[in-house]
Amino acid sequence: MIRIDATLERLDANRQSALERLFEFIRIKSISTDPVYEGECARAAEWLVAELTSIGFTASVRPTAGHPMVVARAKAAQRDAPHLLFYGHYDVQPVDPLELWESDPFGAKLVDATTGPQIFGRGAADDKGQLMTFIEACRAFRETGGLPCDLTILLEGEEETGSPSLPDFLAANKKELQADLMLVCDTGMWDRTTPAITTMLRGLVLEEVTIHGANRDLHSGLYGGAAINPIRVLAQIIADIHDDKGRITIPNFYDGVVELPDEVEEQWRSLNFNEEEFLGDVGLSVPAGEADRSVLEQIWSRPTCDVNGVSGGYTLKGSKTVLPAEATAKFSFRLVGKQRPDAIAESFRAFVRARLPDDCRAEFTSHGASPALQLPFGSETMSRARRALLAEWGKEPVLAASGGSIPIVGAFKRDLKMDALMVGFGLDDDRVHSPNEKYELSSFQKGARSWARILAALAA
Amino acid sequence: MIRIDATLERLDANRQSALERLFEFIRIKSISTDPVYEGECARAAEWLVAELTSIGFTASVRPTAGHPMVVARAKAAQRDAPHLLFYGHYDVQPVDPLELWESDPFGAKLVDATTGPQIFGRGAADDKGQLMTFIEACRAFRETGGLPCDLTILLEGEEETGSPSLPDFLAANKKELQADLMLVCDTGMWDRTTPAITTMLRGLVLEEVTIHGANRDLHSGLYGGAAINPIRVLAQIIADIHDDKGRITIPNFYDGVVELPDEVEEQWRSLNFNEEEFLGDVGLSVPAGEADRSVLEQIWSRPTCDVNGVSGGYTLKGSKTVLPAEATAKFSFRLVGKQRPDAIAESFRAFVRARLPDDCRAEFTSHGASPALQLPFGSETMSRARRALLAEWGKEPVLAASGGSIPIVGAFKRDLKMDALMVGFGLDDDRVHSPNEKYELSSFQKGARSWARILAALAA
Repeated sequence: MIRIDATLERLDANRQSALERLFEFIRIKSISTDPVYEGECARAAEWLVAELTSIGFTASVRPTAGHPMVVARAKAAQRDAPHLLFYGHYDVQPVDPLELWESDPFGAKLVDATTGPQIFGRGAADDKGQLMTFIEACRAFRETGGLPCDLTILLEGEEETGSPSLPDFLAANKKELQADLMLVCDTGMWDRTTPAITTMLRGLVLEEVTIHGANRDLHSGLYGGAAINPIRVLAQIIADIHDDKGRITIPNFYDGVVELPDEVEEQWRSLNFNEEEFLGDVGLSVPAGEADRSVLEQIWSRPTCDVNGVSGGYTLKGSKTVLPAEATAKFSFRLVGKQRPDAIAESFRAFVRARLPDDCRAEFTSHGASPALQLPFGSETMSRARRALLAEWGKEPVLAASGGSIPIVGAFKRDLKMDALMVGFGLDDDRVHSPNEKYELSSFQKGARSWARILAALAA
Repeated sequence: MIRIDATLERLDANRQSALERLFEFIRIKSISTDPVYEGECARAAEWLVAELTSIGFTASVRPTAGHPMVVARAKAAQRDAPHLLFYGHYDVQPVDPLELWESDPFGAKLVDATTGPQIFGRGAADDKGQLMTFIEACRAFRETGGLPCDLTILLEGEEETGSPSLPDFLAANKKELQADLMLVCDTGMWDRTTPAITTMLRGLVLEEVTIHGANRDLHSGLYGGAAINPIRVLAQIIADIHDDKGRITIPNFYDGVVELPDEVEEQWRSLNFNEEEFLGDVGLSVPAGEADRSVLEQIWSRPTCDVNGVSGGYTLKGSKTVLPAEATAKFSFRLVGKQRPDAIAESFRAFVRARLPDDCRAEFTSHGASPALQLPFGSETMSRARRALLAEWGKEPVLAASGGSIPIVGAFKRDLKMDALMVGFGLDDDRVHSPNEKYELSSFQKGARSWARILAALAA
């Protein structure tokens, strides 16, 4: 029997001490990218080990080639409980430009806002506040009869620098880190009062192509008109990739794209996402994707092809009448559903080859590929998490998606075959990575209660 | 009465001394781009002044901000003779890589080749040998009764570095340099036994366009699919400029393009230009221009649009999932006939603007514009020059064109409203600007005879 009411009461009773613990954590300047703060990163890891040890975890600092990992483990109160792996990171972004902060980034304090109190400071949201919602939920369980699940906690110190040590660490500690499900608290809510589960992450295929023409750069006076121009060939290829409805014309590109379940589609429509504001914020007004899809679908659930860079010929100041020997473009494809990265790359290459004049050849380079990730909408895990969040917030959680990939989640999926339940309590205005980062006090407190409810629901 | 036979005989009689004069001239290391050779450039100018003075010209070294000009003037033997301005240059290209020369670049000597003797050395062809053909013709006239035309000779020392001092010099000496016609000896023959008159130079319009989209670079994970990509917009524009027959689709682009006279078209066809060899030399095999035009027309008499450079987004190593805020391309248009540079630039800009989505704007920069130049095929000057060359070589001269512009000729046309008769005796294998430069002895000797005949013909 999971004693969730007592646990929630204990969380409410612990509010003041929980806030003080988070302040203490924020005051540690664990900026991972700057070697000056190496000691602070180590101190943050040690602080977490002490914290976790104090609530009954077997915890240790684990050295890597970079900043250390923290790994902690604890058993559920009852047998045969599910085993969950929680992932978070203790490192934070640099604080510059310092002059734009309204007070000390590492001061750690509450500030009042019209929408309620906010926890102010670097890392308040990303990811110290978020990860502490989970640890506070664990503490409350410990103080009210024990954990409902077997738990492994992995806290990283290099997330903000691209997790360079993570793949090796996963490979070396596969068995220890293997669990039934991964929990991640590094995402956001839909809005201040509406929780969200990030259910889908788009995959990514990165392709570079160089079109070669003549065996050297030519003078356009001498050869202009008669010699093929690789820039023109490349431009035609880029232009051909989309039709006038914004659809990608590469054969078989949409194979494996899954339409949203009606329920999810209906939910997204009812969100009344403000397309004007989203695009207006960056100076745009017209959605550029598939004409028959909403902006939310375009960025969350539809595959894309983007040119991230193009270069060829003379690109410095002024002019040069050159006919270049080659031209290059970098492409990124965002994948969804069951689209196969290798099949997408192959279809793209065939599409390019089919458009090469006799005098041109194409040279391809892959810069990586990863499939889309999706926690099945109809899964038991999803249902339980949804009910738990509904109970806490009084609103159905949004089954959100992320247009970008989250490399860590991809690495766990690839190396440990684990799905991830991504629930977080950040808001769009948290100023993550920017001056004056904050985390809503309500996110911190109701976030901890949310995790308590989710853990109980997953164990039931 | 022009005593051309006596003059030609005198040229033949002077052959050995003419060659020795040219050797002396070649031995002066007048490399204009390297400050080390500043004194040698001055010495070349002084040598020319002495040479020209010795054959009755009023000649002087004229200082500029760079290397000096040589200006010389002489009157015809009879009154009311036409006034011609001859242009040449005494500066030469650097000689590196020196190790590729078979002997001293400034040694100046005859070498034997299967096709006959060759004058070996830097500047042998470009332009010392060529300009001396004209001076030797003048000498022979002087020694046989006098010049048939009033002559001004302008010899420059900065042609190989882009003639930086020429525009100011023309502006400051307009009246002195004004003549009825300009003569230039810096072009080539069709082949070893076929002379050529370069009758057409394509014009040039240089346009740069930057397509702006969002107000900043965007993350393709967050915005990919919904935000317009300026690279895609630019690629579509580039792709639209040509139709599948290689024709340029910009409205009114072909206004002012003049078809070749039947006689010239027939002559070009009869040349049996080796398209395979021309393209094969640079690794190509398929003419890329207008499908219904020969390669010779594509590079000589048809207008073109080429993209000389393109850039946008991330272009360094690896990948970056960026949606760039802008993309840029540099275009060059080669113009023929009476195409108006300002009209071409304006049509191009309108063509681009017509293809801009609502969320994009285009920023244009002009890098220069000049019209095509053409000495009218049916002009009296042309007829006389053709007859003169036919008499010397026993073959109709090819009415050739140059796909590139010759800036000096454009400057004289623009500033002094003078047409140019371009006759030269260089061959494609002269290795101009390269190691082991040579000039055929036959080019030097028959070139001088050709100028004698042309001067006589123009004065008749």
